[in-house]
Amino acid sequence: MTITIDLDHKSHVPLYLQIVYQVRTLIARGALSVGDRLPAHREFAAPLGVNRSTIMTAYEELAAEGLIRSRIGSGTFINGVPAPRHGNSEKEPVPPSPMPWSALLTDQSHDDWLNGMLQAHQHTGSIALAHALPDTDLFPLDDFRRCVDSALRKEGRTLLQLGSSEGYAPLQRSLASQMTLSGMSVRPNEVLITNGCQQALELIHQLFVRPGEAVAIENPTYPGALSVFCGKQATYLSVPVGDTGMDLDVLEDLLLRRSPKLLYTIPNFHNPPGVSMDLAARRRLIELAVKYRVPIIEDDIYGELRYGGPALPSLKALDQYGLVLYLNSFSKIAFPGLRVGWIAAPRIVIEHLTVLKRKSDLHTNLLAQAALYEFTKRGFLTKHLKRVRKAYAERRDTMFAALERYFPKEATWSKPTGGMGIWVQLPHLLSARQILVQAAEQGVTFSPGEYFYASLPQPHMMRLSFTTAGPEAIAEAVKRLGAMIKAQLVNVKKQRGPHRAEGHQALV
Amino acid sequence: MTITIDLDHKSHVPLYLQIVYQVRTLIARGALSVGDRLPAHREFAAPLGVNRSTIMTAYEELAAEGLIRSRIGSGTFINGVPAPRHGNSEKEPVPPSPMPWSALLTDQSHDDWLNGMLQAHQHTGSIALAHALPDTDLFPLDDFRRCVDSALRKEGRTLLQLGSSEGYAPLQRSLASQMTLSGMSVRPNEVLITNGCQQALELIHQLFVRPGEAVAIENPTYPGALSVFCGKQATYLSVPVGDTGMDLDVLEDLLLRRSPKLLYTIPNFHNPPGVSMDLAARRRLIELAVKYRVPIIEDDIYGELRYGGPALPSLKALDQYGLVLYLNSFSKIAFPGLRVGWIAAPRIVIEHLTVLKRKSDLHTNLLAQAALYEFTKRGFLTKHLKRVRKAYAERRDTMFAALERYFPKEATWSKPTGGMGIWVQLPHLLSARQILVQAAEQGVTFSPGEYFYASLPQPHMMRLSFTTAGPEAIAEAVKRLGAMIKAQLVNVKKQRGPHRAEGHQALV
Repeated sequence: MTITIDLDHKSHVPLYLQIVYQVRTLIARGALSVGDRLPAHREFAAPLGVNRSTIMTAYEELAAEGLIRSRIGSGTFINGVPAPRHGNSEKEPVPPSPMPWSALLTDQSHDDWLNGMLQAHQHTGSIALAHALPDTDLFPLDDFRRCVDSALRKEGRTLLQLGSSEGYAPLQRSLASQMTLSGMSVRPNEVLITNGCQQALELIHQLFVRPGEAVAIENPTYPGALSVFCGKQATYLSVPVGDTGMDLDVLEDLLLRRSPKLLYTIPNFHNPPGVSMDLAARRRLIELAVKYRVPIIEDDIYGELRYGGPALPSLKALDQYGLVLYLNSFSKIAFPGLRVGWIAAPRIVIEHLTVLKRKSDLHTNLLAQAALYEFTKRGFLTKHLKRVRKAYAERRDTMFAALERYFPKEATWSKPTGGMGIWVQLPHLLSARQILVQAAEQGVTFSPGEYFYASLPQPHMMRLSFTTAGPEAIAEAVKRLGAMIKAQLVNVKKQRGPHRAEGHQALV
Repeated sequence: MTITIDLDHKSHVPLYLQIVYQVRTLIARGALSVGDRLPAHREFAAPLGVNRSTIMTAYEELAAEGLIRSRIGSGTFINGVPAPRHGNSEKEPVPPSPMPWSALLTDQSHDDWLNGMLQAHQHTGSIALAHALPDTDLFPLDDFRRCVDSALRKEGRTLLQLGSSEGYAPLQRSLASQMTLSGMSVRPNEVLITNGCQQALELIHQLFVRPGEAVAIENPTYPGALSVFCGKQATYLSVPVGDTGMDLDVLEDLLLRRSPKLLYTIPNFHNPPGVSMDLAARRRLIELAVKYRVPIIEDDIYGELRYGGPALPSLKALDQYGLVLYLNSFSKIAFPGLRVGWIAAPRIVIEHLTVLKRKSDLHTNLLAQAALYEFTKRGFLTKHLKRVRKAYAERRDTMFAALERYFPKEATWSKPTGGMGIWVQLPHLLSARQILVQAAEQGVTFSPGEYFYASLPQPHMMRLSFTTAGPEAIAEAVKRLGAMIKAQLVNVKKQRGPHRAEGHQALV
């Protein structure tokens, strides 16, 4: 009989316990049976490179559990088996039967928007136009490292201890004062720090929406919002998005007839269509929300990434009624990996959201909050924003020029003055998902438009992000995509030429 | 007319925009009215310490919005008002009427276990025996700072970019291998990193429990679990806890009659009663779960804080059926402020939980995960655990001795061989909550037992944590508490002497 034991001398599990655990497992698996003799302390210890006393302690522990027994003069023997008993068959262990997991789980199969969107990330070596993410290469790592170190030196151990569910107080104050400078009147205790906007959406949904109640959302919109508002048991009302944001006539009709509990919008550089609501639309939206008593979730995650056009007031700044729940985050302007965002809302709403936040995860991690506070306070965020605004504006312009040059004349696209992506409309005959398959083989990824729709997905839409790749790579990727699209268009037209109307119908 | 503008020269909001935003707000609030003349560029710029061009840009922006207009030769005037229109009264702004928030929110009023528990934290200068938290003073700050810095240097900018929803892969691997050393068979892709055990509970609840379905929990138990499993719309089945953990006969009866969907337990150093399940109870619990096909949530957050007694196998180690969902965290053994915990469970369960995790907050922050990975890998966790186990064991013994010496003989308490607190039973006539009021005035805080009950709260129970205060402070605090309790006992007995039976009835 050979006993194979693997020890990790660096583990926080003491060596004698590693031995106890593994002997126990060997007995449970039948590799050691009742009556088997264990090696003497010295024999056991030598090959493992441990002291005899370690083996002695392990044997004592196993004996205390009744698993082994020493007989004076003859050695140590396996005495018991730790396997559980089953019904009447105490001797023969019943073979494990798997748990019927599928029957036990609540159905999540419809909540896969984010999964789809994030998977496109995985192609290494490709030119990635798939994600609305900041460019990793532009992260000011040294500045940030200094901020983390300084936060730990200044605040010391309290950053590692349990904190407040509402957030790290200096960060709450700093965000409130930045928002006030931007024309919104916000006090520090009207700010709740969250794990990014995603958690903010989830908490607000929990607070305002009971099963069966509806949320009005723009269509298309951010897939993370779809995952929260359009899950299996949720009811949503989708409002189409035009050149100045959502169609407010459709919205008013829905407010009147369907009484949604919340209204979710991205007024600045809407993701994916890239449009911003103009001032008149913003005012009318506030009026409608007041009239129908519906809180507005204003997602301003792209607000600071403006490359031209007027800086329009946020809904929160226009809101005299305290009905806007304002969301923002450091994920687009700085570092998504830190998962720090915030909600600014009337105090009574923040109080209730804090109860839910506490239940969700007690609080957002303090180290990231304190580091971002330092990063803001020392002016690094301002410096970084200047740099990325310049870079992203240039990349957007490169993408515009490449689209103009390489895409077929039948394609059209948005002209966003900010944000991270361009929304491209291909001829109706084409499917962006099919193009993605070919593109991935040729080293280019993007997001097919269908990921962004709550309803009526449009297969001929695609979103091209201009932030994660450099200008040369962008031009090259758009060139390759243009060639593929033109070739497919020729093929499709050739096949369908005489039956165009029919083909069109089938594809839309 | 005086215009007061506050500028923050360090803000990432450009100066001209700060001016635009604030002028807009002044107009909206009526501090500036149509026809009012704005100062010339130079006059405006001088007192603010900005360039004339900044004012010029701000005026252009305001003019583009139609809020101001220049008349040649006479200056710049307020031209429009950005306040929203209302119904028919276009001229008179309607005074803002508040949103009817209370009517709009779903009811959270029953979810306040954690709030109660955490509030006792706030008394500064007191000796805090209220919280099951590690001692801040024992945190190895320099070691940790080195780990953060090293993680950032090694991994670089990728730690700041969006990561995987399942967790930081090196940490998943490290946890899986540590668990395997402890006798559990776990692969890295069977580990999901969460924001502490609290989020783990929340995600598991979402995955397994539909409205109206029940969860079996120990009573008393961790208040964070109560907040998840016993909220307004939840159904729970409470199982009393005795000297060897939960009453398994009661549990079997509930499994048979009420079909709970999940079973939540803390087998090691149960919080608050401090007891551990013995091996026979662990085996029978697994058998019951197999028989009734109920997944067990095993919360092992105190498992590593063992000061004596045998190291019993975890339920996960005994489980041959893959029905245990194992939870653990760095919050008790290291740093709760980082909010990093994990779930180890069969791959199919992890896959579904990952979808929910993504929807909740995309992923747990990478910096904290990478820093904890370094902290583990370099052996700092092992070193830290040795140190705190020694310190906490000593403090626990100090508390035992002080209880023996200062508490009335009618009081009894648990004798935990691990964990963070002692569970004290006072004479039935006393109320721990009343004692807390007096204790807080005298500089001692603790947790009244009632915070921990799902049902039938016992007012005469209290939990005294021995981890956050040093030995002298513990002895002093127990001395003060003992004197208060003895005095109250004398009073209560005096008042109720002749009517004892009646008084007892009323108080139990």
